[in-house]
Amino acid sequence: MQIKQSENGENQNLSKNISIILVEPEHPNNVGAVARAMNNMGFFNLRLIKPCDYLSGGKEGAKTLAMHSQDILKNAKVYSCLSDALVDKQVVIAFTNRARGQHKSLEVSWNLEKIFTDIRHDYKIAFVFGREASGLTNAEIDLCNICMKIPTFGNNTSLNLAQAVIVILYEASKVLNKIGNTKSENINLATSNHIENLKLNLFFVLGKIGYIKNGNKSKRWSVFSKLIADKFLTEKEVNIMQGILNKIKEYIR
Amino acid sequence: MQIKQSENGENQNLSKNISIILVEPEHPNNVGAVARAMNNMGFFNLRLIKPCDYLSGGKEGAKTLAMHSQDILKNAKVYSCLSDALVDKQVVIAFTNRARGQHKSLEVSWNLEKIFTDIRHDYKIAFVFGREASGLTNAEIDLCNICMKIPTFGNNTSLNLAQAVIVILYEASKVLNKIGNTKSENINLATSNHIENLKLNLFFVLGKIGYIKNGNKSKRWSVFSKLIADKFLTEKEVNIMQGILNKIKEYIR
Repeated sequence: MQIKQSENGENQNLSKNISIILVEPEHPNNVGAVARAMNNMGFFNLRLIKPCDYLSGGKEGAKTLAMHSQDILKNAKVYSCLSDALVDKQVVIAFTNRARGQHKSLEVSWNLEKIFTDIRHDYKIAFVFGREASGLTNAEIDLCNICMKIPTFGNNTSLNLAQAVIVILYEASKVLNKIGNTKSENINLATSNHIENLKLNLFFVLGKIGYIKNGNKSKRWSVFSKLIADKFLTEKEVNIMQGILNKIKEYIR
Repeated sequence: MQIKQSENGENQNLSKNISIILVEPEHPNNVGAVARAMNNMGFFNLRLIKPCDYLSGGKEGAKTLAMHSQDILKNAKVYSCLSDALVDKQVVIAFTNRARGQHKSLEVSWNLEKIFTDIRHDYKIAFVFGREASGLTNAEIDLCNICMKIPTFGNNTSLNLAQAVIVILYEASKVLNKIGNTKSENINLATSNHIENLKLNLFFVLGKIGYIKNGNKSKRWSVFSKLIADKFLTEKEVNIMQGILNKIKEYIR
């Protein structure tokens, strides 16, 4: 089997649009092992939400375990919440091992090829991994388009963080190498920032018209988040909906 | 996508014929992380060649990192050399990131499906992983049918031991789940023990007839190892060849 493989090869071009996001990683050695896994598989964009002090640490610290991947750690961007890290993202995949919030079903990572075949490869994609002990919150899941699990078959369904990351990056690098960068439809998916602004605007209007009350706001937010995430709205569609909402606002002032 | 998934499911039946073999693992935490990865993916047979003291160790020891996978560690079989651990194996896959010895080319792990489709799933299969720092020796590679690498795309082609194991077990569990246990041809591949005895007998004869001299023995051993490994000889074929060799021996006494 011929595979394209080089330090600056095809895969690197394709993978540059993918960010790996770790939410509140607790152990420096896990952050280091993730950086090494990224460097193994040709992914270089790391974003960290309220991370542990990953640049310190001795023998078992992130820098030691990153194995020649210090640049990834050094260039990692740090954010105070997940939504800030997603503002420029168009496809957000959350990894979790059970269905959460409004995501009643989970994709399995074996299907990554199908998902990647369906979307443009110049889209900005985020792979989001939760805390070692407690994963992602429902509010964080609401920011994502797709919930995905790595199928397990043993007695322990919980993968170590860096183990989960390398499995996903292995799968992604295989898929990217296989399908190449052939898609070129002239469709621009909305970014997470556009989507969140749309949701805020929608909920402002829904509040004004009494559809949302304090008691049901949180549940409705989840329901609408899932509904909108499923649709993979384009920038144009979001603009149209924002225009409609703004028009409505003029009437209900 | 429907996937079969249970503690005692289909995958576990298929995976019971696969052993994970670590040659001289140096760090207890790597052995522990391998056990956890095996328990994640539903593989339970661990064999260790001259391992570090993996059952001792404190906070970072194997037992801590094995995460509910202590049974795998407890039941691991320990050997003093790789050939002893392979005596009952019929298909031996060595993982290495560069071509070695007579294995001039490497399979890539993406092709595991093709390989598994071609062989019977009740065969005894070994996945062999080398030392953290120095991998496998050429003599160890000579014991294997297939050399395989995990494709990498970054600046660091060297995967952490447990990272390599989980990637391969993830790929294997996907393949096993996909193809099921449908093969039933009445062919019995020879075990590694049969093959090694055949090679010893062959080399005894080749030495007697002067084909092999001290100067070229090691190189010829590698060449013949590769040649024989490629053929996936059946038990019957090995018996025939042993019969021929024994007959020759009577004549050259």
